[in-house]
Parts: sequence; structure tokens; C-alpha cells
Amino acid sequence: MTLTQLKQRSLLGLKDLGKDEIESILDRAAYWEQHPNKVHTVMQGKFAANMFFENSTRTRFSFEVAEKRLGAEVLNFSAAVSSVQKGESIYDTVRTLESMGIDAGIIRLKPIGVLAELATKIKVPLINAGDGNNEHPTQALLDLYTMRKHFGSLNGLNVSIIGDVLHSRVARSNLYALRKFGANVSFCSPGNMKAEELDVPYVSMEEALKADVIMMLRVQLERHESGMLNSAESYREHFGLTVERAAKIAEHAIIMHPAPINRGVEIDDELVEHPQSRIFPQMENGVPIRMAVVERALS
Amino acid sequence: MTLTQLKQRSLLGLKDLGKDEIESILDRAAYWEQHPNKVHTVMQGKFAANMFFENSTRTRFSFEVAEKRLGAEVLNFSAAVSSVQKGESIYDTVRTLESMGIDAGIIRLKPIGVLAELATKIKVPLINAGDGNNEHPTQALLDLYTMRKHFGSLNGLNVSIIGDVLHSRVARSNLYALRKFGANVSFCSPGNMKAEELDVPYVSMEEALKADVIMMLRVQLERHESGMLNSAESYREHFGLTVERAAKIAEHAIIMHPAPINRGVEIDDELVEHPQSRIFPQMENGVPIRMAVVERALS
Amino acid sequence: MTLTQLKQRSLLGLKDLGKDEIESILDRAAYWEQHPNKVHTVMQGKFAANMFFENSTRTRFSFEVAEKRLGAEVLNFSAAVSSVQKGESIYDTVRTLESMGIDAGIIRLKPIGVLAELATKIKVPLINAGDGNNEHPTQALLDLYTMRKHFGSLNGLNVSIIGDVLHSRVARSNLYALRKFGANVSFCSPGNMKAEELDVPYVSMEEALKADVIMMLRVQLERHESGMLNSAESYREHFGLTVERAAKIAEHAIIMHPAPINRGVEIDDELVEHPQSRIFPQMENGVPIRMAVVERALS
Repeated sequence: MTLTQLKQRSLLGLKDLGKDEIESILDRAAYWEQHPNKVHTVMQGKFAANMFFENSTRTRFSFEVAEKRLGAEVLNFSAAVSSVQKGESIYDTVRTLESMGIDAGIIRLKPIGVLAELATKIKVPLINAGDGNNEHPTQALLDLYTMRKHFGSLNGLNVSIIGDVLHSRVARSNLYALRKFGANVSFCSPGNMKAEELDVPYVSMEEALKADVIMMLRVQLERHESGMLNSAESYREHFGLTVERAAKIAEHAIIMHPAPINRGVEIDDELVEHPQSRIFPQMENGVPIRMAVVERALS
Repeated sequence: MTLTQLKQRSLLGLKDLGKDEIESILDRAAYWEQHPNKVHTVMQGKFAANMFFENSTRTRFSFEVAEKRLGAEVLNFSAAVSSVQKGESIYDTVRTLESMGIDAGIIRLKPIGVLAELATKIKVPLINAGDGNNEHPTQALLDLYTMRKHFGSLNGLNVSIIGDVLHSRVARSNLYALRKFGANVSFCSPGNMKAEELDVPYVSMEEALKADVIMMLRVQLERHESGMLNSAESYREHFGLTVERAAKIAEHAIIMHPAPINRGVEIDDELVEHPQSRIFPQMENGVPIRMAVVERALS
Repeated sequence: MTLTQLKQRSLLGLKDLGKDEIESILDRAAYWEQHPNKVHTVMQGKFAANMFFENSTRTRFSFEVAEKRLGAEVLNFSAAVSSVQKGESIYDTVRTLESMGIDAGIIRLKPIGVLAELATKIKVPLINAGDGNNEHPTQALLDLYTMRKHFGSLNGLNVSIIGDVLHSRVARSNLYALRKFGANVSFCSPGNMKAEELDVPYVSMEEALKADVIMMLRVQLERHESGMLNSAESYREHFGLTVERAAKIAEHAIIMHPAPINRGVEIDDELVEHPQSRIFPQMENGVPIRMAVVERALS
């Protein structure tokens, strides 16, 4: 296999990934979803390394479950408990694990651009598990999967993405992918949370609630610390999906959120497991999606 | 399988568990103890998630060894290195792992009542690995197993539990279970460490040492911080199992401790591996006990 | 098997290990290197516990990969996230994991002498993964393996070890082992980083660069904190392997470093993946070496 072929098995983002390629991942996930309760042997003897230079519960475990279901061996690296503290660079850590013979690296990190640079230097396929506010491709894939499952098709679907678009890799990856499938994406954000560089229409909250998909984003409380207790309440009042607002959405519409959730800030407690909410089903769908993505990388 | 049947495979505490059920766990542990040096396949393809919202070395590894011996896949969640730091709730974390398809959750947490509430909302069986000062059922099961192994029967056995009963889930779980088997439990504690709500006789240290089982509890140094260096010495003087005191216990009696041990506080260094001590055998017995409990949850 | 035979499968250091024994480990590693991309079953059903009482990325993962390739079950203990914080002793932790039925313990710790003492009390084989500035035998074994692979033989080889010899377990283990094979070891160090107790000639930097093997040591920045930013530059000037200095080494010579690397301090950035550098190949070789060492312990 040539290096180019190897690198084609990487998944750095959805912006530059073809519609057919995305569709084949979604289809393969559907296959895995129908084979849920088993550990398989397709990837036996392969090593997947989860390298998280930023904290994560959900995404890391979702990958780990996917990898183990494929029969792969799993290595978990978490920056907080390692010698990255001693000033070791991200490159050296990834290169080290590559030297030890891993077959694929799943990477989350903060600085934008580092992953793209890593991919030019590291020979094994890399999977982006979230890099800064750039992309989070497996999250968007599971979101598309969830929408496709409910609506049958993504073509012509109206999707509102509501909240802190500026800091959201989830919003970006969804935008890139949804447009390839002919969906219409609108954003709804406070003035200081808009991503001006993206060519997307901003709509009012009232308008946003008319969509087929109401996708709420997590407010990064940890990134807006000063006076946040007051502003949490104010945020909910202006941009939160409250019980009152949820009553106005269409009967066929669904509510989504990438989690973790700030209950009572961007979404009311009672809505998280509402019949129209797909929040926990999104997490369920994350496993077959990541099985498809990891299998693609390892095979 | 109905939800009720599923939930019957949970183990939240021993207070409400029948004597027969406890006995069948002890018997199954005896079976596993006779098959120690092998990894089995009975639970192959099942996922067990150890979710520790409080630090633990012993209990977590004991469960992990048990799970791996049963052939199950293991996920380890530790609150200290995860996004619980970002304010994510315990419920959301457990529900997230449930969504990813785990077959059982082993949970340690601090706030009392949360586990019982979780069990009404989460569909997979849950195993209590210690909740506040409420219960620690697998610890008590391994304690009972250790006593039964030494004495043959628990009926009529005199058990002294010595130390910080107030904060001890180990004391409570042992009390509930031992009484079902006809054992006589006495407590011996400093005035500020008594659990007044439990109907148990308090005896003097001299009296306590006459029992068949001398069970020392860990002093939670981290919970009584002020002036602890002085009081460690004073604690040992009044309630510690010193070499002098140990010389007075019956020849057939055994010394127990749930560990981790404060050597030189509640028990003298020289006694930890004394011929009458069962402290490390308790840890050995923890593995087959947890194999039985996890197997019960997963099957 | 007797206890003595069991303990002979430990690897506490190279100082007291016979040349034949070292050679048989190197040969077995060569066997494993030729079988790289597979998970084997030779150690199926065995439990290896990695117990790191000091932070580590490289060594811990190298052992984990080796153990998993042998088919063993792996337990990872890291002091930073455990109840060692509650004052539990190292002995109690190791003894606890022994009680749970592990078949070998891989241990890194800081205080010198503790490992040797542990080995007299713990029944399962122990492998030293680095203890203070005493020994780091698996690192030296992989270093010897790397040299032997390049030069064919170690006999008569000139090896310069450059840097903070005083605090270096890597230097010590290499010294002990290389001499058994007839290699000539020289040190080159700043005055305050010499290990006076070792009978090794100290040479100038110019002289050191004439060797067949230029082994750079990590400067323990964390151990010399005051004024380190200035002294990093000064260290590089006097004892760093700069691009200028590297241009002077022999064509057949190789550059080594145990990593993690302080790029731009003890070695220039451009040299890390230089054709004559063996830094990442050393990490590759670490896996088969540790497979051989763990196999020896477990079998």
C-alpha cells in the first residue's frame, strides 16, 4: 500500500471529504448498528491509540467501545496524566506511539493546524476526534446518521444550529457535510458568538425553531468565565431551548445536542429525554459511526 | 427479559437482599476460587464499565481483574480525569455509557441516594462499589466469604467492628448481611464516630477483643483533618489494634480490615501480615466474589 | 516452581545479570521483531500489572504494547490518580495487586532501594521500569539491541554517554551491560552532573564525539529549576549535540537518546530524525525487548 493510500484512510475533517465517501461511512455504520451486541474479530491484532490532549469522556469512550467491538487492541493516552506535562511536544508523543507500532491514531487537541501538520509527518492513518474550533468529523457523521435515520434523506432538510457557533467545531463539520447532501443550514447566535468567516445566514430564535432539526450547541462556560452565573440565565432567556419554545417546534422536528449538556442553560432539563429529542440516540449512533471510521482507518 | 428481571441482577446493597441470594453469590465465588488462573469466556462480548466518581485503587482493580477473568470487555471511567470536571452530572455520565451499549455499570460515588435514584432510570444492571457511608456490598460479601471460609459457618459468630462506624459503609453492609446469617455484631467506637441510627450494642475495646472476628475500620484521616497528627497517636492508644492488644485475642479469632490501612493508627504494622490476619486474603477473596457479582449482572 | 526460580524471572537491574542471560533476551527480542504485526497467545490468561509511581508515557505504553502482543491481560496503575494520594504505601499497593492474582509486576518508582526490598517480599516476578537514578534495565537492553543491530557486535565498541550522568539510571544500566560485552564507555558531563562513584573516564565534548555511539542524556529540567532558561542555552552551548557538532561525528557512528527529548537543549531539533539518529528506532526496538522481558517473567 502506498503512503497516499494509507493517508486516504485518515479522517481529518469533512470539509474536503467527498459526498460518496461520507455516504459509504454512513452505510457501513448502518451495517454495524444491525450487529450491535458482539465483539467482532475483523480488527484483531490491530492497535488503535486514543490520544486525547484535551479532556473528553463521551468521545473517548465512544471510540474505545467501537475499537473493542472491532476486536482491536486499545491504548488510551490522556495528556493530563502523562509526561506532556514535562513539556514533551504533541508531535513527539504521536511519533512515539507510531514507533511502537500502532495502526491508527485517534487524536483530540486544541491548537488548530497541528493535526493537519501531524498528518504530513505520521505514516499511520489519523482520525480527528476534535481539534480546537476547526472540525469534529465523527460527531457530524453521527449527527448526519441520526438525521438520515429519522428523515430518510438529508436533501432539502432545514437545520438550525443554535448557540456558540464561533467556538464550535461541531457546527463547522455539520455545515460542511450537510451542504454536500443538499440540506439548508441556518445559524442562530448571540452577537459575540458568530463565526463571521462562514457564509451562513443568521436567523432569529423564532425563525430557527421552524426548522426540521433544532441543533443546540454547548455553551463553553469554561471559555466565558467572567460573570457567567448571571449570563447563564440571560443566555437561556435569549438562546436557550426552553420548554415554552420547544412547544412551538414542528411535530416532525427533532432536537439534537452534541453533549455534554449544560442543563438549564442552552436546553431545559425536561427536554433532554423528550420524545422529540435525539440526544441519547446520538450517543448510541456514535458507536457504529466510529466503528465504520476506525475500520476504514485500520483496514 | 423484563426490566424487573434486569434490575434484579443489580446489587445496590445487602440490606434488602435475601439470605438465599447472598448465599448463592458466596457459593458461586467458591466455584470461581477453584478456577483461579484462567481467563474464561463466559462473558465474552459483554462490556462492563467501572465508573468511579471517587478515588479507588483496590476496589477498581479487583473489579477489573474479575471482569477480565470472565472474558468481558472493560471500560474504566475515573471522575478525576474526565469532563465531570466540566460540571457534567453523574446521571449524564452513566446514561452516556449506557447509550454506548454497556451491559453493566459498577459505580462508586459519594452522595447518598444518588445510586438508588440512578437505578430507577438506567436500564442496565448497576453494582454498588461504595456509596458514601451507605453501603459497600461487595466488600461485605468478601468479608462474609472470608469468615465462612475460616469458621465454616456464620451462625452464632461474634463479630466486633471497631473504629469509625459513623462514616463506614463497610460496617453497615457487614451488619446487614451478618445478621441475616445469625451472627452477633458489636461496635466499638469513639464517641464522635458512633452511628446512632443503627441498633447495635457498643462495647469497650476490652470486650470487643473477645470476639471471633476483630474487624478494624480505616480511620478516614482525610475527613478529620484538624490536629490529626496528635489524634492519630491518641486514636491508636484508645482504639487501635496494637501488638499488646492482639496478644489477648482468642487463638481461633481472625483480624480483618477492608484496607487501605493506616499502619500504626488503627492497626500496628506488625499485625498486617500476622498469621491471624486475613487482610491480604480478603483482597484475594475479592476477585472471586466480584466475578460472581459481575457474572450475575451480565448473564 | 520454587520461589528462587520465580525470582530469577525478575529483572531488577543489569549490574548483576549474566552476559549469557542478557544475550538470550536480545536474541528473543530479535525473534519477536520478526513477528511484529500480530497479537500472540503465548501469555493468554496471564495478568501483567504496570505500576508507575512516577509519570511515564513512553515506557508505560511500550510495556503495554508488549504485554498485549503477548496476549496477556494488562492492568495499569498510575500513582497520580489513585489512593497513593491517601498515603498508602508502595508496598501495600504492590502487595494488593499481588493478592488479586497478577503474574508479574512492572514497576517504576523514585526512592532507591525500595524495589530491591519489594522483591524480597513479593512472590511474583518484578520488572524494573526505572527506579530513581539506580537502573533502567529495559532501556539499556533496547539500547544494546539497537547498537548490536547496527554494528553486529558490541565488542570493542566505543560509546560516549553525554550529559547528566549523575541523575541517570539509563547511563548506569548501559554502563553495566556494555562492559560485560567488551564495549568501552566514556562519560562527558558538566562538573555538577558527574557520578563520582562510577569508575568511568570523563572526556571532553570534542573527544566524546569521536565514538561509535553518541548517546545523549535528557537534562532533567525539572530537577534543576532555578535559572534554567538561561542555563538551557548555556547547556546546549557546552554539552548539546548541535548541528555543527553532529557534522564532525564519524560516518558510521549513530546518535542515541532515551527520550523524552528536550529539543534545542541536549540535542538540536534537526538531528532527532537525522539519518544517523536511532532515536525513534530505539522506541521501536523497545517493544520486542519488552516482549522478551515480560515473556521471561510470565513463563
